[in-house]
Amino acid sequence: MTELSKAGVERIIKKAGARRISTDAAEILTELMEEYGTFLSKEAKKMSDHAGRKTLRGSDIRMAAEIFK
Amino acid sequence: MTELSKAGVERIIKKAGARRISTDAAEILTELMEEYGTFLSKEAKKMSDHAGRKTLRGSDIRMAAEIFK
Repeated sequence: MTELSKAGVERIIKKAGARRISTDAAEILTELMEEYGTFLSKEAKKMSDHAGRKTLRGSDIRMAAEIFK
Repeated sequence: MTELSKAGVERIIKKAGARRISTDAAEILTELMEEYGTFLSKEAKKMSDHAGRKTLRGSDIRMAAEIFK
């Protein structure tokens, strides 16, 4: 089950320059964006655990993105 | 300006295993996910242009993700 709204993902595709998009385009991009977000979140969780914190911070997410870019 | 809802991105972080998250974590992950989505959409737009189509399809997004993974 996906968490992001189809409308938001459609706006991202349109802002990137596509005028017409098929119905499956937003669904597929949603899946891919969520996979990426889940991957970064899991890595960020490891960072916050490693730092001995119970709260995952924005800096944990940034560090995960730095490492895996 | 971001397009995704903060609530949806927070759910993604929590599903990845984080129990507590700071307020900036969802904001930063939203930015990163949107950057990724925008990048894939622009590449997918090139694919659909190259194929001589006016409509961007899910298969264009998949091909973009295949190439840049």
